[in-house]
Amino acid sequence: MKIQQLAREHQIIVTSASLLGWDQETYMPESAASFRAEQLSWLSSRAHELCTSAAWHDALENAARQTDPGDSATSACLREMKRRYHLAAKLPVELVAAETSASSISKHAWAQARKDNDYQRFVPHLQGLVDIARQKAELWGYSNEPYDALLDCHERGATTASISVLFDGLRSPLARLARAAVMRSNSHAKPLPAGPYPEENQKIFNELIARDIGFDYNAGRIDTTAHPFCTTLGPRDIRLTTRYEVHDFTSSLFGVLHEAGHGMYEQGLPGTQPGMASDDAVSLGIHESQSRLWENHVGRSLPFWEKWYPKACDLFPQLRDFSLADFMSFVQRAEFSPIRVEADEATYDLHILLRFDIERRIFRDQLPLAELPEAWNEAYRELFGETPVDDTHGCLQDIHWSMGAFGYFPTYTLGNLHAAQLYRSAAKDDNIHRSLAVANYQPLLLWLRENIHRHGALFEPAELVTRATGEAPDARHHLTHLQERYLGGADY
Amino acid sequence: MKIQQLAREHQIIVTSASLLGWDQETYMPESAASFRAEQLSWLSSRAHELCTSAAWHDALENAARQTDPGDSATSACLREMKRRYHLAAKLPVELVAAETSASSISKHAWAQARKDNDYQRFVPHLQGLVDIARQKAELWGYSNEPYDALLDCHERGATTASISVLFDGLRSPLARLARAAVMRSNSHAKPLPAGPYPEENQKIFNELIARDIGFDYNAGRIDTTAHPFCTTLGPRDIRLTTRYEVHDFTSSLFGVLHEAGHGMYEQGLPGTQPGMASDDAVSLGIHESQSRLWENHVGRSLPFWEKWYPKACDLFPQLRDFSLADFMSFVQRAEFSPIRVEADEATYDLHILLRFDIERRIFRDQLPLAELPEAWNEAYRELFGETPVDDTHGCLQDIHWSMGAFGYFPTYTLGNLHAAQLYRSAAKDDNIHRSLAVANYQPLLLWLRENIHRHGALFEPAELVTRATGEAPDARHHLTHLQERYLGGADY
Repeated sequence: MKIQQLAREHQIIVTSASLLGWDQETYMPESAASFRAEQLSWLSSRAHELCTSAAWHDALENAARQTDPGDSATSACLREMKRRYHLAAKLPVELVAAETSASSISKHAWAQARKDNDYQRFVPHLQGLVDIARQKAELWGYSNEPYDALLDCHERGATTASISVLFDGLRSPLARLARAAVMRSNSHAKPLPAGPYPEENQKIFNELIARDIGFDYNAGRIDTTAHPFCTTLGPRDIRLTTRYEVHDFTSSLFGVLHEAGHGMYEQGLPGTQPGMASDDAVSLGIHESQSRLWENHVGRSLPFWEKWYPKACDLFPQLRDFSLADFMSFVQRAEFSPIRVEADEATYDLHILLRFDIERRIFRDQLPLAELPEAWNEAYRELFGETPVDDTHGCLQDIHWSMGAFGYFPTYTLGNLHAAQLYRSAAKDDNIHRSLAVANYQPLLLWLRENIHRHGALFEPAELVTRATGEAPDARHHLTHLQERYLGGADY
Repeated sequence: MKIQQLAREHQIIVTSASLLGWDQETYMPESAASFRAEQLSWLSSRAHELCTSAAWHDALENAARQTDPGDSATSACLREMKRRYHLAAKLPVELVAAETSASSISKHAWAQARKDNDYQRFVPHLQGLVDIARQKAELWGYSNEPYDALLDCHERGATTASISVLFDGLRSPLARLARAAVMRSNSHAKPLPAGPYPEENQKIFNELIARDIGFDYNAGRIDTTAHPFCTTLGPRDIRLTTRYEVHDFTSSLFGVLHEAGHGMYEQGLPGTQPGMASDDAVSLGIHESQSRLWENHVGRSLPFWEKWYPKACDLFPQLRDFSLADFMSFVQRAEFSPIRVEADEATYDLHILLRFDIERRIFRDQLPLAELPEAWNEAYRELFGETPVDDTHGCLQDIHWSMGAFGYFPTYTLGNLHAAQLYRSAAKDDNIHRSLAVANYQPLLLWLRENIHRHGALFEPAELVTRATGEAPDARHHLTHLQERYLGGADY
């Protein structure tokens, strides 16, 4: 069979599973949970079976042989699919099963440890997951160090060295900048007028904006969940979710802008060969660049609110005595939070730099897990100027490690760095620049479609950014953006 | 592998497909349709593959061999699964594919023919589907005539002869009774006060009632679709849908009562061995008996509205000057409609008797398809006293034949007959009788759980009804019910 057919079948299975997952979070009745787990597990076994089958391997080889080497797009697509095949096929089923089981147990252990502020009880579980991650790295292979393999599986082409270059240069200037931003914000940010902000009106507002920036409702929708996400149920079926805070309407809106950024990327993929790499997002970092771009660069900008604040005041009358300037001080506030998921744009990446450094040391055998809290707290003090009150608000706060997700955190900051570089590069175009000033985002979306979305996974993330912006990924764009927005200067 | 495991896997696939189908009708964005069709088709191929596999066949045979013949429940379950296996396995894939393709084309041809009132253009399509149905009947085998096989595939154990006995005895008394009911209703039924009946309040009202009669919201939910349905997404996940008419709140409510009847049957199955016949509804007729029982016997009764009409008046103030007696004349109105799906309880079965007689003649080669409209109109005149204005309001009105569904219509009337027999039998119990009088339906539901639901597909429908009521299925209970409700006398 042809690889296109097999890949399409794989995508059919994976997206069917995504629908089951989406329903589980949105509409599924409570008692359905255990049978739903069986349905999901059946589908994921079928998907794994297919893409590690001899038929898949042979079809890939045949396709590669039959492709004209001058056809660089097809060649790149097949190379990337081969890479993904190897990521899956190199792991013996026993190891995959061991990881599933360990992470399922560890998630519970982590939740308990976090609740009781008892890190040491979590150590044996974490050790087990680190050991499994090491085995995976050995099976996949790496150029310099095991952590490379873990980074690469989330962010194709990323290495410890390349991320270190980006992140280590960011550390000091970002820490300085964040501190200054927090001080400035403390002195003049105003709190949002009290709620309630009725959910119905939040939905109206969010939908107006999602449509306006270009999210296609014929090929997607927005529902409500405990944790916002974006999921792809087919080439023309992208579902976003958000959650509603009755005392802060911006919480659901920024959720929608973030997820719509992911969603518009998915909607902008070619959609002609489902399951092929040419039709798939390239990496988590590039995905996050799209969500952060719309959430932060667009959604927290002055022109955006010059356009939308009057409508907000219509829908939420308590805003009528709160000036646009006051409101901007609220959406652009900066404050230190020990909790990553509550951090704002100015301080967020400090949390990631800390986690990257700790993961790097773990996989270099430079940090015994029992000593992790001390290392965490020391790094935190260095970056934020104080110590977390306890491990629950420190090294135990995130679920990721308990799921065996090592090498994942850096993609958040890669997303922020790429977002700044892409946004500022697009804005060099006169037409886009003028359009951004009046909150018309169609030209920006077309630029992203042309330079990012339509390429699928044909180029490595770093190459994709370089092609789009004319220079290799560089953290200074993000610093400049934060400097301008949080410490005065232009903000567009 | 054990048959329990294979059956569970089959159920996992089938219910996953049901979720995709449910989503398609409820929330799916427009542009997702074509890929959704591919997802559904993949799942249905996997299900068919599995239950026609050698593994399935062998597992069934092994299980049957290893079952103690004294274990009548397991033996009955395996017998029924073997029957289902043969229904699927005896059809060559080419015939299944030919039917899928023919019915897909015919549905469009039918829609066009109905729109243009041009039956003759539909004849070749109908002929093709009748021919395929005949081939299926030959492959499945039958005792007396081909139509038996088509009836049996929808209603296990049903034959042309057995349905004829039930239906032919119903014809004249029902036609007389319906005519009298319509005359009486014309003379005193009052129209419902004008809307709007806000959708939000309809939802509140419906949910109160659905919970009260026993639909379990932990294992199900209600959504909105163009056509109401009930679907099973897992042993504890039963989804109902309804639609809202702003000018008649009873439309969505009777939809919910009907679908909740189906849903409570599914919720009352044992749920311990998904995919086994012991855990599956036995037939369409028994399923319909549950929906009609709650919709008509319960939902159109006086005690039900004595309980709920005050709440309706709270939610819909325009009802406050409309007396309960007037309202009862509205929910118990009888009128002739040429369209089956708009028919009321008193006249509905005449539509089915007509269709059964026509199908019987078609498959006995007594009715060339070109002459169907004349046969239809003559039968209609005989039953309803007039002639349909055209074929669009006559033999072209239903979608079923264009989908190749022959032998399906009779299950609707079987449902009505069984509903009356079950309801009246349950009401012989003093406690149930007293509870019905005060609209407490818990004892009735327990009786249905005990006598119908928990048995799954272990008994043939006729045997199930006989065991529950102490006598073989008999149309006179339905006639007595209609007589009492529509021509005076007790109504409980």
